[in-house]
Amino acid sequence: MQAPYTNLKTHHKWVEFSAEDTTLNLSNASVEQLQEWKQQLSAEYDNVLARKLNLDLTRGKPSAEQLSLSDAMDGILAGDYITASGIDVRNYGGLEGIPEARAIGSDILGVPVENVLAGGNSSLTLMYQTMAIAHQFGLAGEGSAWSQEGTVKFLCPVPGYDRHYSVCEHLGIEMLTVAMTSTGPDMDQVEKMIAADPSIKGMWCVPKYSNPTGVVYSDETVERIANLGNIAGKNFRVFWDNAYAIHDLSDNPVALANIFEACKAAGTEDSVIQFASTSKVTHAGSGVAFIAASDTNLKFFKLALGFMTIGPDKVNQLRHAKFFAADGALSAHMAKHAAIIKPRFASVLKHLEAAFSDNDLGEWESADGGYFISFDTRPGLAQKVVKLAGDAGVKLTPAGATFPYGKDPQDSNIRIAPTVPTVDQVEEAMQVFVLCVKLASVEQALANS
Amino acid sequence: MQAPYTNLKTHHKWVEFSAEDTTLNLSNASVEQLQEWKQQLSAEYDNVLARKLNLDLTRGKPSAEQLSLSDAMDGILAGDYITASGIDVRNYGGLEGIPEARAIGSDILGVPVENVLAGGNSSLTLMYQTMAIAHQFGLAGEGSAWSQEGTVKFLCPVPGYDRHYSVCEHLGIEMLTVAMTSTGPDMDQVEKMIAADPSIKGMWCVPKYSNPTGVVYSDETVERIANLGNIAGKNFRVFWDNAYAIHDLSDNPVALANIFEACKAAGTEDSVIQFASTSKVTHAGSGVAFIAASDTNLKFFKLALGFMTIGPDKVNQLRHAKFFAADGALSAHMAKHAAIIKPRFASVLKHLEAAFSDNDLGEWESADGGYFISFDTRPGLAQKVVKLAGDAGVKLTPAGATFPYGKDPQDSNIRIAPTVPTVDQVEEAMQVFVLCVKLASVEQALANS
Repeated sequence: MQAPYTNLKTHHKWVEFSAEDTTLNLSNASVEQLQEWKQQLSAEYDNVLARKLNLDLTRGKPSAEQLSLSDAMDGILAGDYITASGIDVRNYGGLEGIPEARAIGSDILGVPVENVLAGGNSSLTLMYQTMAIAHQFGLAGEGSAWSQEGTVKFLCPVPGYDRHYSVCEHLGIEMLTVAMTSTGPDMDQVEKMIAADPSIKGMWCVPKYSNPTGVVYSDETVERIANLGNIAGKNFRVFWDNAYAIHDLSDNPVALANIFEACKAAGTEDSVIQFASTSKVTHAGSGVAFIAASDTNLKFFKLALGFMTIGPDKVNQLRHAKFFAADGALSAHMAKHAAIIKPRFASVLKHLEAAFSDNDLGEWESADGGYFISFDTRPGLAQKVVKLAGDAGVKLTPAGATFPYGKDPQDSNIRIAPTVPTVDQVEEAMQVFVLCVKLASVEQALANS
Repeated sequence: MQAPYTNLKTHHKWVEFSAEDTTLNLSNASVEQLQEWKQQLSAEYDNVLARKLNLDLTRGKPSAEQLSLSDAMDGILAGDYITASGIDVRNYGGLEGIPEARAIGSDILGVPVENVLAGGNSSLTLMYQTMAIAHQFGLAGEGSAWSQEGTVKFLCPVPGYDRHYSVCEHLGIEMLTVAMTSTGPDMDQVEKMIAADPSIKGMWCVPKYSNPTGVVYSDETVERIANLGNIAGKNFRVFWDNAYAIHDLSDNPVALANIFEACKAAGTEDSVIQFASTSKVTHAGSGVAFIAASDTNLKFFKLALGFMTIGPDKVNQLRHAKFFAADGALSAHMAKHAAIIKPRFASVLKHLEAAFSDNDLGEWESADGGYFISFDTRPGLAQKVVKLAGDAGVKLTPAGATFPYGKDPQDSNIRIAPTVPTVDQVEEAMQVFVLCVKLASVEQALANS
């Protein structure tokens, strides 16, 4: 398998496990055995085809049930549009966002309020803007633009988030992959690459419940990332997309170390820029996005931002502030999300564990939060599995999407997004998924036998 | 005077006029007369200084009273977040905005719904994005990026809007000024410049109640602008910022000709890109912005936009759609704005007419709508007047702000923004303003005598 996960197939205590399947030990199987399996699995697959399913595991977005948790937001202002400090949120201005909204970002990211800017409805926009500004104008003033230094490269831990890659691709930034491990990016590899190549200007990170692997970066990884600024070329910036900072499923979530503090300790405050949003907290299309960064980064970000906008939607920011005003309101709200999502994740994991825990047909990482479960087939089978499932009415994210330029060199990673379908639909879809992995694996083993 | 207005000092029928001042006919005055005037005016100015005023005519934004007209927007959804076509506006997606919001843009701009994109809260952001995309990637596909053609220049009718200029400046686009007339930009000059220089890639326009002159482009001007695509270099794009399309003060507003139709007739559909927003219609900081363009322009705009965001705030778009759902709701709403703004504009015009209608100390254009009144002092006096007024507690927009790079070559244009202060405050501020213009003019005449 391509990703050197060291802690695979973790049994999640909150998942009900039942061994329901024949162990498919392909490595030791005879051709006859393989043929028999193929026949059985093909028959099962034909039965599924006949059912003409229409299921979808592609969309990493909240379900309607989750969205409804925040429906009280519209109307929450009750005619009061003035902030505690007297800002009329209805009017123009306030590039940094209102203090109350910045405080939410501060809570989520563990960064002082003065280092947080609360923006519009999209952290992707903030990330795009930050990268475009760093590239074209620089985040440290005169002479700091990446574009002045020729080729610009970015490290991308894989598998990762396709929209991160497409920002780089759009802006002409070359992507280099590094492997994800169960503790985060392979830091030996990262440090080696960065020390050897000053044209590497940064790295994408989803440090908690990484998209799609679900990995939470270890304390050591966070510390080593904070130290990259000391070994990297000029104007190096880690893009720390903490999209799932508060999206825990487990009752005892792993804590992510504070990168802002770690950078301070390492003297590299300018080397990491953090992002978050309430998109998967309140309403996905109308949340509030945050950027958190050092004084210098924020200063030059705002300088450029001021040419692009007069300010964010402060009315919506105030709605969020009122919605989460009570002590503990945010975490209580996230617990409601978890209660909705958890059975769906449990269903996925139950099927994966039942089918693959005692064979080598697939691997997956922990999934104690976030929106995805990442599955690795045997090399060369991801596209095949996605096609088989699609033909059987179960839509999966295209294989390769979790890699830069859409190319998974091992053709093995598949991202499973179970939040939108109902639990019953996830159950049904996962039965098909498991079947397709088995069928594809057996056919491959036969072809190679 | 620098701007060849041909129709100056129009008496607005809705402005109560009273001759209250001594005619200051400086050209024919003796030195003794000038000295006497100076003494009188200086004494008056000293009296004003003693009053320690604190008034502000700088901000082109709605007053709290205007903003309150839209306070029913928060809560208007009453729990119903689904559009007529079944879109759940709470979730991700929908780069073009919801049909209902696009229909509002279509109404305002007179462009088919399918050629309108409804975005976030800022038309400035759409303009910046459009210019950045045209420059870096091109709005007509492969090979259409301005940056590939060396120096890029833009025409800027002056006086104009400082935030248009700053977008150009930020992106390294060189600005060339053309004069505004009472019918729009001096089209003889525009056509000549464009025919002579293919590096001119576009022109900024505020076609109705132009910021700051208040001019509405004549039918002939609109037609000639539509034809520019036939004489301009490759990839020429007029940025048509119709910010005040529905912001009439007069009961019989002048109609602006439809540029989209004019371009169709001229075969230049790709040469004009239109912008508008509800910023000065509903809540200034949380409105909906629109871009309207040909199929080709919109296609390539959306292609690039898709890297920057997953979609606009559709919840807020639906609020707008419901707020303006009834037939005639939008124009009825704008009439309420007019009722609030009109007395403020009337106060400004009353004072200008009383003080300057029978002398050559200043000129101004019509102001039947929009947010500004543009005043031209005798050459060389704008900075002086702004300073005198500021010292006397009346804040004015810095002189030069209405010109590219902040430099008014004649030092004569001053932008007056009367919407935020109360009518009494506008009255008081205008008395001071008129006094400062007179004092500065007399002092200049004396120095030159």
